[in-house]
Amino acid sequence: MINLIDIGKQAKKAAFILAQLSEKEKNNVLKIIADQLEQQAEKILLANQKDIKIAKENKLSDALIDRLLLTTERLQNIANDVRHIVSLTDPVGKIIDGGTLDSGLKIERIRVPLGVIGTIYEARPNVTIDVAALCLKTGNAVILRGGKETKYSNQVLVEVIQDALQQANLPKYAVQSINDSNRELVLQLLKLDRYVDMIIPRGGAGLHKLCKEHSTIPVIIGGVGVCHTFVEQSADLERALDIIKNAKTQRPSTCNTLETLLVQENIANIFLPKLAASLKDKNVKFHADKTALLILQSVNAPVSQIEEQALRQEWGSLDLNVIIVKDINQAIEHISEYGTQHSEAILTSSQQLAHQFIQQVDAAAVYINASTRFTDGGQFGLGAEVAVSTQKLHARGPMGLEALTSYKWVGIGNYTIRT
Amino acid sequence: MINLIDIGKQAKKAAFILAQLSEKEKNNVLKIIADQLEQQAEKILLANQKDIKIAKENKLSDALIDRLLLTTERLQNIANDVRHIVSLTDPVGKIIDGGTLDSGLKIERIRVPLGVIGTIYEARPNVTIDVAALCLKTGNAVILRGGKETKYSNQVLVEVIQDALQQANLPKYAVQSINDSNRELVLQLLKLDRYVDMIIPRGGAGLHKLCKEHSTIPVIIGGVGVCHTFVEQSADLERALDIIKNAKTQRPSTCNTLETLLVQENIANIFLPKLAASLKDKNVKFHADKTALLILQSVNAPVSQIEEQALRQEWGSLDLNVIIVKDINQAIEHISEYGTQHSEAILTSSQQLAHQFIQQVDAAAVYINASTRFTDGGQFGLGAEVAVSTQKLHARGPMGLEALTSYKWVGIGNYTIRT
Repeated sequence: MINLIDIGKQAKKAAFILAQLSEKEKNNVLKIIADQLEQQAEKILLANQKDIKIAKENKLSDALIDRLLLTTERLQNIANDVRHIVSLTDPVGKIIDGGTLDSGLKIERIRVPLGVIGTIYEARPNVTIDVAALCLKTGNAVILRGGKETKYSNQVLVEVIQDALQQANLPKYAVQSINDSNRELVLQLLKLDRYVDMIIPRGGAGLHKLCKEHSTIPVIIGGVGVCHTFVEQSADLERALDIIKNAKTQRPSTCNTLETLLVQENIANIFLPKLAASLKDKNVKFHADKTALLILQSVNAPVSQIEEQALRQEWGSLDLNVIIVKDINQAIEHISEYGTQHSEAILTSSQQLAHQFIQQVDAAAVYINASTRFTDGGQFGLGAEVAVSTQKLHARGPMGLEALTSYKWVGIGNYTIRT
Repeated sequence: MINLIDIGKQAKKAAFILAQLSEKEKNNVLKIIADQLEQQAEKILLANQKDIKIAKENKLSDALIDRLLLTTERLQNIANDVRHIVSLTDPVGKIIDGGTLDSGLKIERIRVPLGVIGTIYEARPNVTIDVAALCLKTGNAVILRGGKETKYSNQVLVEVIQDALQQANLPKYAVQSINDSNRELVLQLLKLDRYVDMIIPRGGAGLHKLCKEHSTIPVIIGGVGVCHTFVEQSADLERALDIIKNAKTQRPSTCNTLETLLVQENIANIFLPKLAASLKDKNVKFHADKTALLILQSVNAPVSQIEEQALRQEWGSLDLNVIIVKDINQAIEHISEYGTQHSEAILTSSQQLAHQFIQQVDAAAVYINASTRFTDGGQFGLGAEVAVSTQKLHARGPMGLEALTSYKWVGIGNYTIRT
């Protein structure tokens, strides 16, 4: 079995070197990676075909196989994403704040890399390149633990990255992968606090729970979005339909997709038939509480009665929960009980209720008259994202480059003592 | 046994209310607490005397009893510290950044309270008031778990706080304490992730290890400082003596106290006799490596040979380790191996070496020609501190009010969809 202590030690050594690099040096290796992804496309696609073949033999779902699949075009996009990361500003070395104390000591708070990042993810070979590029840009070493379904793809992709690192005279151990499907290794990685500074799980609720319960390293919890939209009685109902269509159907597998629609009681009879008509051509299936069920059935919409458990889960598909609430307070209570603190929206014409919603809903992103689909590093102008955090410490919501850094306080004196 | 689920639920409910308060409302309750500490001084000191009596019967150390002891003057200082927190600016509600996206969506990142804080600490009744006041100022509820030695003092202090909360028409469950010495309760608190957002342990290395290993809640690791000062050959040796005296002897029990002095080889023969003379009247005992031992013995300094284990621990007393190193690289290696990433200093006249030290030493605070004693929220201008963090996520170094907050993204649209 792979020795994780060795991997951790090597990563920490590499991180020491990466932390000293200039932005130019870091961009240089990213450019080589982007070029190499293009030049070695044939080799990469061949390895990916092996993974696809095994996935088909193991009868994995079409959705999973699609996520696993690399094509010439997708690989080109991945290379271009790396070039986009080159164009972003490196936060490392930035002075956050500072000043001169009464004693004459000059202090500054300076951004530094976190050190070593561990990532545990599933069958997405693009994540391998994406996370490695974001970590290198911010001077962090990374230990990648991809799903076993991407074994051959990841092997070649990490080879490409390590070759690029060596071409740039940098330690190849800056990016390492654990390419052994033994689950015990995940548990070992989670306890490697001597060498690893942060764990980013990218996967479902089960993976996050596993990490939270077993890790002695700080874990970024996120990615699971049971997102709500509350249609308040004063909302512009016609325009509300566009928001809901966008939030539910634009890309149903993403974590910022609408899962549960909350509709104020006294507009349900008017609004739900409009909703059914609006979503008909998108083949959205409804899961409704008793009152909403009757209304939706009366217009022959595809609907079944909801089970409570469904309110706590992401559908990841064209399924939509519909719940009737008395008022905004009940809506906020529902969100507090069933939400995952990801993205929550209210549609209303009342400034006062909008304010109440912003104040009282505890989530990474809160929207007034907008689609929950906006919660995304690219949309928010962060340039890229390493994850979407739904916890409160360190980083919340879309995590860009800055979320891969910490800071140190630097004090410069003239033989200055504390009095 | 106390039911922690109930405590957690009540704290979360209280946090919801606290998060909506204005700065004025929060200051109001803090002022009542400060006044009540003065008005109820007699009752508080009486309870404290009970703790002191038991501590003496149990033959606790003088240092511990001193930490435990409240006097009229100390209580007055604690009340004034609360008034000082009133004078600080509340970070909650502050807009960190924001802008308008191409789609027309206006986004803002707004500071919000963390929610519920759990604190586990030792025999310091002042921490009870201090932490509660900082949490209330930032709109957080808090669950306090003080050492069993402060049982009677904490009981009365929490009563005073809860009375003040009720006088201000706020939920008394905003500040709760677990006043049962059963250790099982600490383990239960560490798994209360459903209700508690952050754990701050304030104690020794053992407590931090326990929290790291058992908590499913993010833990702020900190407070343990094995701090170094490296005297490089170009340093002004006379002025270096003042720095070392300040860093070692000003308040030896604090975490920013110098524990290990690193001296460059080629100045050891000149510098160590000066050092022994300088620290003689302070009764500093030396623990030296072989070379330093011979030099210190030759001037009759109180010295013994160091054991490796001592390099990894805080003395908390007037003991100083002395290690000879070849050069700056060896000094940085030593710090990397034995340091706790708290506060590290170099004394040098070389700008280049100062820069290397800042770049390569991985610690919350790095000093050039200054005393490590500066690592402190008050000194750094944060106004107050809830802890000193030696980890890299969320907050590093002295943690002020801002470290008790998170942020939420707020998006305000005009029925805006993602394209």
